[in-house]
Amino acid sequence: MTATRPVAVIILAAGQGTRMKSARHKVLHPVAGRPMLLHLLASVSELKPERQVVVAGAGREQVEAAVAGTGAVIAVQDKQLGTGHAVAQAHDALAGFAGDILILYGDVPLVRAETMRAMLDRLNQGDEPRAVVLGFRPADAAAYGRIIADGQGVIEKMVEYKDADAAERAVTLCNSGLMAVRSTDLFVLLDKIGNDNAAGEYYLPDIVMLPGAQSAVIEAEAWEVAGVNSRAEMASVEADWQDRRRAEAMRDGVTLVAPDTVFFAYDTVLGRDVLIEPNVVFGPGVTVADNATIRAFSHLEGADVGVGAEVGPYARLRPGAKVGPKAKVGNFVEIKKAELGEGAKVNHLSYIGDAIIGAGANVGAGTITCNYDGFFKYRTEIGAGAFIGSNSALVAPVKIGDGAIVGAGSVVTKDVEADALCLVRPAQNAKPGWASRFRAKMQARKAAK
Amino acid sequence: MTATRPVAVIILAAGQGTRMKSARHKVLHPVAGRPMLLHLLASVSELKPERQVVVAGAGREQVEAAVAGTGAVIAVQDKQLGTGHAVAQAHDALAGFAGDILILYGDVPLVRAETMRAMLDRLNQGDEPRAVVLGFRPADAAAYGRIIADGQGVIEKMVEYKDADAAERAVTLCNSGLMAVRSTDLFVLLDKIGNDNAAGEYYLPDIVMLPGAQSAVIEAEAWEVAGVNSRAEMASVEADWQDRRRAEAMRDGVTLVAPDTVFFAYDTVLGRDVLIEPNVVFGPGVTVADNATIRAFSHLEGADVGVGAEVGPYARLRPGAKVGPKAKVGNFVEIKKAELGEGAKVNHLSYIGDAIIGAGANVGAGTITCNYDGFFKYRTEIGAGAFIGSNSALVAPVKIGDGAIVGAGSVVTKDVEADALCLVRPAQNAKPGWASRFRAKMQARKAAK
Amino acid sequence: MTATRPVAVIILAAGQGTRMKSARHKVLHPVAGRPMLLHLLASVSELKPERQVVVAGAGREQVEAAVAGTGAVIAVQDKQLGTGHAVAQAHDALAGFAGDILILYGDVPLVRAETMRAMLDRLNQGDEPRAVVLGFRPADAAAYGRIIADGQGVIEKMVEYKDADAAERAVTLCNSGLMAVRSTDLFVLLDKIGNDNAAGEYYLPDIVMLPGAQSAVIEAEAWEVAGVNSRAEMASVEADWQDRRRAEAMRDGVTLVAPDTVFFAYDTVLGRDVLIEPNVVFGPGVTVADNATIRAFSHLEGADVGVGAEVGPYARLRPGAKVGPKAKVGNFVEIKKAELGEGAKVNHLSYIGDAIIGAGANVGAGTITCNYDGFFKYRTEIGAGAFIGSNSALVAPVKIGDGAIVGAGSVVTKDVEADALCLVRPAQNAKPGWASRFRAKMQARKAAK
Repeated sequence: MTATRPVAVIILAAGQGTRMKSARHKVLHPVAGRPMLLHLLASVSELKPERQVVVAGAGREQVEAAVAGTGAVIAVQDKQLGTGHAVAQAHDALAGFAGDILILYGDVPLVRAETMRAMLDRLNQGDEPRAVVLGFRPADAAAYGRIIADGQGVIEKMVEYKDADAAERAVTLCNSGLMAVRSTDLFVLLDKIGNDNAAGEYYLPDIVMLPGAQSAVIEAEAWEVAGVNSRAEMASVEADWQDRRRAEAMRDGVTLVAPDTVFFAYDTVLGRDVLIEPNVVFGPGVTVADNATIRAFSHLEGADVGVGAEVGPYARLRPGAKVGPKAKVGNFVEIKKAELGEGAKVNHLSYIGDAIIGAGANVGAGTITCNYDGFFKYRTEIGAGAFIGSNSALVAPVKIGDGAIVGAGSVVTKDVEADALCLVRPAQNAKPGWASRFRAKMQARKAAK
Repeated sequence: MTATRPVAVIILAAGQGTRMKSARHKVLHPVAGRPMLLHLLASVSELKPERQVVVAGAGREQVEAAVAGTGAVIAVQDKQLGTGHAVAQAHDALAGFAGDILILYGDVPLVRAETMRAMLDRLNQGDEPRAVVLGFRPADAAAYGRIIADGQGVIEKMVEYKDADAAERAVTLCNSGLMAVRSTDLFVLLDKIGNDNAAGEYYLPDIVMLPGAQSAVIEAEAWEVAGVNSRAEMASVEADWQDRRRAEAMRDGVTLVAPDTVFFAYDTVLGRDVLIEPNVVFGPGVTVADNATIRAFSHLEGADVGVGAEVGPYARLRPGAKVGPKAKVGNFVEIKKAELGEGAKVNHLSYIGDAIIGAGANVGAGTITCNYDGFFKYRTEIGAGAFIGSNSALVAPVKIGDGAIVGAGSVVTKDVEADALCLVRPAQNAKPGWASRFRAKMQARKAAK
Repeated sequence: MTATRPVAVIILAAGQGTRMKSARHKVLHPVAGRPMLLHLLASVSELKPERQVVVAGAGREQVEAAVAGTGAVIAVQDKQLGTGHAVAQAHDALAGFAGDILILYGDVPLVRAETMRAMLDRLNQGDEPRAVVLGFRPADAAAYGRIIADGQGVIEKMVEYKDADAAERAVTLCNSGLMAVRSTDLFVLLDKIGNDNAAGEYYLPDIVMLPGAQSAVIEAEAWEVAGVNSRAEMASVEADWQDRRRAEAMRDGVTLVAPDTVFFAYDTVLGRDVLIEPNVVFGPGVTVADNATIRAFSHLEGADVGVGAEVGPYARLRPGAKVGPKAKVGNFVEIKKAELGEGAKVNHLSYIGDAIIGAGANVGAGTITCNYDGFFKYRTEIGAGAFIGSNSALVAPVKIGDGAIVGAGSVVTKDVEADALCLVRPAQNAKPGWASRFRAKMQARKAAK
């Protein structure tokens, strides 16, 4: 199922997004940790398109910045004159392109490449339909435009809900708006449609009902063409995406104790026999290897978790965290841009940033790598098998040698050689009876208040 | 839609609440962070009532304590002789009052002022009904009493489910129990109803069917009159409230990545383009300004978050926390009664209590303000642009001047002047080879065990 | 309702569990914190069975290890020749046993002892059925085998879905597979069934339709016989279990602000008027006494929480944590194998392991008990009424006497006597102007980059 003719895509992204009530452009709001428009461009890239045109209006600078590096170009729609008009704005950007054109929507982010390919394949089947429309059957067809088609998916009529009669309204096949059309047809057809309607807009679907060749419909599942016009719809698309991703994870051999409480990102990679406890959040860029356990209330972004490692509860892995095989990151521990060797342990209340920790090292509770002086970041190295006593501060740049021991409560500013003991500790003084005198004084003061 | 005649309310709160299995009075259990009875009194206060009477029985001391300062008075119902009898106990407290009386229920907490006003307005319409009953249409009408009314809402009959015939049971309009009646009518009517029923109780709805003037019904949505008789029903009312609040937040331009995992309090205030990640809990008294981000697993109570600030993940803001514009509170950080200036950062594993932190200051990981000596609380001041090294303890009262630097691991007991460096640190000692000798000894000891 | 004849159980656990995609044996995956097979054995133990036989195939070593100490023995099914064949493998292990035999499934973990007893009771009623089959009525009967029975539960026919005619498919009573049969009948009947079917397998239900005596069906609720063949089904069984447990907790007088976000273990014990905020996870072995509060984002395993105690938010109680009456464990605090006396407080960012803390003691923010030297664990004792200053490290073994005060930031290595003040702190040095010179230098360096 591969499209053999050249492909171009037009992505409509000129809607005002008023209902989002946001300074951020609607198509740049994220789903599963990635802006909607980039979801679409990622799927589109699987088709290896020759051209990608994003039609933008208000806020187009934001859109332009977001697509930098993707190969997409921006076409401008200054006035909101309907979808037909919007598509027409891509004309110049597609000058000289000969092939098939897919029309997509920046706020319909989850269409799969597989579905796009199916549209292109249908366009090139023997009966050569003029356009291929992507239809769907929503749970509640409500006010969607209906598609009346025969058994082979040849379209007899497309009709807006408000213009449909009772029999047409009873049809459950609805128009998603997505379409595939040949480059030789698209702009010719657009020239022929009018704007003789209440809104005075040019409607893209009207090209289907123009006299001449017939068009065809293929069907997608409703979730795939769900659109986002409000934050509630965005949350709903996100929820659907998460549900499908959770089911996929379980199918692949991951245990989710409470699937509804685990949130994945678009690119989360999970091995077999991974166990994920309730309430875990994955940001982008996380890979978890086989047999690893992610305990409750953990938060991972840009991190690699090795085979059999244990993370959490309450572990925060930030970008650049690499947790080695069978290593452990415990509660209230933050790891940033740091590597833990095999079997290394950072079990409690620690901040490890810009560091490398050797295999089998044990970092005590409350240890902090002081990696920042307000201007630059510095690196901490802890050798294999080293033991860092609790509540220590390691002032980077600093190296703790293999097998070295740092006494509890130490502020380490100079390197410690392998197998040495490092102690930074004043003498312990006691003032007998001081506490009872203090209490008496304070109680008197309290009483006096 | 304003009631122009004087208003009094009677709130029935004398039920035993047996199914709650609680030492706390039922109407004092909280929904959305506020006792149910206080939800009701807050809505009632919008009507500016002349009198508010809470009819209480068992546990009335708890109720009395809870309404202190609200202007409500307690009337006592010693015996449980039905709702009609309960309302009658308010007679003395309403002596001399002339106007309209609303009858509400302490365990039906979410009725809106708008609905109460609509009841009063209806009472004062041209046909002057004797009583206005609040009806609703539940998803499952079950065993609720039915209201048979004409198209204008004039009541033909009110009938208990058990006495209703099939046609009456098929009616979906049910009686919530809430009612509005004139002061000149209420107690006169109550005197006329009997207790000739299986339970030997006086039923308030019986006043509607007494001979004479007709009564009217208006409708509320079912959620608004949901009652609480058990902890499961309380959880259900809470869940409904949260769902509506989440939808409202999204409508107003707040992104909720996973709406079902965010819990608001009755008075949470949220700006536009606020982003809230999964698993965030708001206690009472929180305001979040525009463009702020509340990251996953955060817990906020009594806190102000400024424009563009970033809080969490795993941040706990306690009462009196004020996070300035673009300031950052990071993971495993607790802020209590403390103010962070614009752009200040407390990013990791810190406790900041009774403090003021200047603009642009950077508080390192593991910093603790020692604000308590077991008797009194003391204040810490950190100047603008100051840099507090990691793992420091600031023993209050203490001032760190503008631009000062505190070395990592310092225990600061004396003020530090502006732009000074403060170091509290013993010399670092090393004992070469000590660690390997220690390991050998311990391994031997372990082997010997 | 007690079975008076001797009881034996056969638990089938020889399925491959392929859809789990797991190296762990299917019946050893946990639900509510306990392996499925052990759920079943715990219910079985209430029947005081004389024999328990687990029929295992691939991975039987794992099963054998898991049942150690339960009295169950393993019978081996080497080839997968159907449920009838599997049951037959228990023949030798049941040699000499005379009584009633229950046939259960390791992947149907939640059948209650009460239901098992009802099956045995039915087997011994006057009409003495040959077998008692456990039926259920699923929401969607789908492809389950149907049971055609008369009003007394006497089975007329059992039929596989694929062999059923339309009338039989319309029957909603389905076969769970669970069965009770007399020891004198079971193996005799199994010898008579054939494997003349597409799969060439011996089907246990075939014994019901053999000529001779009639069998009977009794009904269980669908959740009780839900089976687990995939991780998604496991998550579903877990979710059902959690929902029922939450409802039970609320019925018993526990407030769950957001029930769906609280996860219990199979053995969680909760007192009356316990309040549990959103997002709390209970591992095995937790008891919470009356009036205690478990705040949001807490994680408890193997812990006792006393009357009126307050735990969390963000508290982690690990095995051996005992929180005394009215004691408080606050945010980002980990307690392991440690006892807190009445009213003791550990409110912020602490690790308390292998310790005993006296009544009324106050442990400051950031306190760490250094209980491990890489080889052994040592104990910390803090006396009643003691005050541990913030950011202290207590290097065990060490005792802080009653009423003693430890200054903030101290590393305590020697015992502190009662009522003494312990200070471990170097002098504070200041270098005026150093910070501004440092800043100038660093800014220059930054500019040079």
